[in-house]
Amino acid sequence: MLDASHAPDSSPLVREADATLTEQLAGRFRDRIRQRAIAPGARLPSVRECARRHGVSPHTVVAAYDQLLALGLVEARKQRGFYVRESTAMRASTGLDADRVPVHPLPVSATSLIRGMFQPPGARPMPGLGTLPADWLDLPLLAGALRKVSSGQQLAASLRYGEPAGEGRLRQALAAKLADFGVSASAHQIITTVGATNALDVVTRTLLRAGDSVLVDEPGWSVEYARLTALGLRVLPVPRGEDGPDLAVMQTLIESQKPSQRPRLYVTVSVLNNPTGASLSLQSAHRVLQLAQTHGLHIVEDDTYAHLAPAHLPRMASLDALERTIYISGFSKILVPNWRVGFIAAPQALVDRFVDTKLLTTLTTPGITEQALAHCLEQGLLRRHTERVMDKLGVARSRTVKLAEAHGCRFAAPPRGLFGWVDVGMDTERLAQVLLDEWLIAPGALFHATHRPTTLMRINFCTSQDQRFWRVLDRARAEL
Amino acid sequence: MLDASHAPDSSPLVREADATLTEQLAGRFRDRIRQRAIAPGARLPSVRECARRHGVSPHTVVAAYDQLLALGLVEARKQRGFYVRESTAMRASTGLDADRVPVHPLPVSATSLIRGMFQPPGARPMPGLGTLPADWLDLPLLAGALRKVSSGQQLAASLRYGEPAGEGRLRQALAAKLADFGVSASAHQIITTVGATNALDVVTRTLLRAGDSVLVDEPGWSVEYARLTALGLRVLPVPRGEDGPDLAVMQTLIESQKPSQRPRLYVTVSVLNNPTGASLSLQSAHRVLQLAQTHGLHIVEDDTYAHLAPAHLPRMASLDALERTIYISGFSKILVPNWRVGFIAAPQALVDRFVDTKLLTTLTTPGITEQALAHCLEQGLLRRHTERVMDKLGVARSRTVKLAEAHGCRFAAPPRGLFGWVDVGMDTERLAQVLLDEWLIAPGALFHATHRPTTLMRINFCTSQDQRFWRVLDRARAEL
Repeated sequence: MLDASHAPDSSPLVREADATLTEQLAGRFRDRIRQRAIAPGARLPSVRECARRHGVSPHTVVAAYDQLLALGLVEARKQRGFYVRESTAMRASTGLDADRVPVHPLPVSATSLIRGMFQPPGARPMPGLGTLPADWLDLPLLAGALRKVSSGQQLAASLRYGEPAGEGRLRQALAAKLADFGVSASAHQIITTVGATNALDVVTRTLLRAGDSVLVDEPGWSVEYARLTALGLRVLPVPRGEDGPDLAVMQTLIESQKPSQRPRLYVTVSVLNNPTGASLSLQSAHRVLQLAQTHGLHIVEDDTYAHLAPAHLPRMASLDALERTIYISGFSKILVPNWRVGFIAAPQALVDRFVDTKLLTTLTTPGITEQALAHCLEQGLLRRHTERVMDKLGVARSRTVKLAEAHGCRFAAPPRGLFGWVDVGMDTERLAQVLLDEWLIAPGALFHATHRPTTLMRINFCTSQDQRFWRVLDRARAEL
Repeated sequence: MLDASHAPDSSPLVREADATLTEQLAGRFRDRIRQRAIAPGARLPSVRECARRHGVSPHTVVAAYDQLLALGLVEARKQRGFYVRESTAMRASTGLDADRVPVHPLPVSATSLIRGMFQPPGARPMPGLGTLPADWLDLPLLAGALRKVSSGQQLAASLRYGEPAGEGRLRQALAAKLADFGVSASAHQIITTVGATNALDVVTRTLLRAGDSVLVDEPGWSVEYARLTALGLRVLPVPRGEDGPDLAVMQTLIESQKPSQRPRLYVTVSVLNNPTGASLSLQSAHRVLQLAQTHGLHIVEDDTYAHLAPAHLPRMASLDALERTIYISGFSKILVPNWRVGFIAAPQALVDRFVDTKLLTTLTTPGITEQALAHCLEQGLLRRHTERVMDKLGVARSRTVKLAEAHGCRFAAPPRGLFGWVDVGMDTERLAQVLLDEWLIAPGALFHATHRPTTLMRINFCTSQDQRFWRVLDRARAEL
């Protein structure tokens, strides 16, 4: 059962329904603004655009926007249109002073993007999707694995809190799996978490304190910037090139800080960086590690896309044998997003501290999904599934690349992995706004640590194979 | 498969094993120190005690302790015995300056206690256990619920990240359940989390920043003090009496701070406070809310033990209709500890901010266990299970109370709920140390925000029905 606020809203307005067209249209915008699927500060589509898209008269749109105005959800700016209001009134009503609210320069847009990913089945197509589409995943495989662990002795593990570091059986299987990527870790060095997001959270909370600096890749995953910012950290972006981070910039960023303010951590996706798809070269990996050694940095290597890349690509955790590198990964991007199983493979000396932070944050992690995942690893189910996905992804990537190029888009990085980083020749935030009701896209601004207009956007190769999307893009470009 | 470091170690030493008795004994202590099941700073049992307990000669014990000394795990203090070393060497080797390591005055002992709770089946009995014993839980009920949601349409929800606030179906069921406790909340006000611990974490991280003050009950749950301290918060303990917090102290604590330093949050277990079992009276609830109103406090009402108390006991969330009160609960203490399902019922104005913090911390929560729990609620399975547990708990409580009193212990608070708060007439930390290998107990020092010796300890009524435990206690008292 889904509650009303999450119901899809791309269905056509129905003329004979109980509510008037105006009420229906206002209702849709109201719900999406309250869900923050439309971020505070965003501009609503122009009256003309909106009328065309919904097949209603401009008068109906004006009336609907007026209702939103009356609800205090939007504000009119002269000659510029209607904008979603920053919800200061709401914050004030919580009894917290506005200036005491933790500063989140990014989360609004970042969480807005994530919220957009949580559309129930049947909603608009999502070229901006961050995972494999649901119908690429193997439901019978998952059902079988759950059945295996849902009875008798194995389920009995649910009756106790479970091991602080996570299910021993899964940690053994992960240690074996990591060897495939050249990372040598014992089960004692592995800590399971609630997805890779939680792994990143546990690590940064343990190693850093509010006010500390942290190096990140740019472009990179905006939710990670948002997470670090919400922890009170100073985010220092390092330009990420095709082979790795810009080492000269990284060195300058480190050395230009006062000693007490120098970054202590570098968080990076070394293989299939999101959104560019670039992977670290062996040489670059070596040099980053040298720099880390010189400046006493720890490296958090987020290997979320591990399974979608050739296994031989270099990992820093492999080169330095988990000395300064803390390796993080999960299974949301390959097997199942909502089991929320991730893990940390850590230097031995940090294991206990990470386990302590985990205990204080979630106590332990759910045993049932960890056991089911262990089954998938032990039986080779994950490996065979990955092979099937890779074949299919190769086909989808070729097809999407052809479509994109045929429609005048240019790839800003060689197309690899799940995502393409493409230049569409128009401001992509504007595009996202125009397409709001029809297609979820991921504008390039969401992959920068500081907001800037850009003609780049991230596309998911699996969900961008629809001719109609590229035609819509052509039309939008022509119109704007 | 459990890895070696978590294997039980209360089995007798075996004379004919490959390892010598000395090696075996040293090995057990080594593992437990490394797991931090024995906290840094703790004293090992005296040579005489240890020899008696393991049935070996004092010479064997001395040789084993010497091995631990050689490993750098313990240090000898003249005339006082052997102490587990603070692992400064380990920390230094991580590349973090010792003075930069976040200060955790409490977690060591708190997480050590929790780690002790994660003994696999077959380990020593646990009068200090914090949950219902595994064999009081209903495995067939849980297996049935998982089967219900492990196929077809319902499992398909695992293929997407799921709703940011949590499974809609569970939130509906929780809203209905809360009505039983007089708390009126819509599904839109509910956010699911990874157990109640994670709910507390999401709330405090959203509302407070490092350096802020927070009011807590004392005695209270030490892991909560540890969690708040690890977030950099100043913990202000308020004495918790039989009817509620000491309001005069609370008021003084608030008013004695500089305005900028005044606490903004009061975290409390209003029903069946851990460890005392005391519940808030209606009058006290009303007065706490008045004080909160006057001083702009939010209240976090942790109702973890909700199901083990009569439903009619007053909740502040009921009195103030979730205006300043944020209600938190979970199912670890009644149905299943390791599914890790908890939730927040929040004032409407705070919902989005909590959802954002949840997204940045764990992204979403696992759908499968949330659906299974929804099934348990919808079908009345939880209610019937609770009735059975309550009947059994009543019997266990009577029996344990009789045993405790027969062995000269006095209850410092009227015995109610799952835990007894009992005065055993000797320092309970010393007792915990002496019994280390045989019984897990929860010394009173773990329920105070600042360390102090106490003759109180918390007992679990379910797991303290064993005559032998009380006889061991008699003997320890006589000997020390």
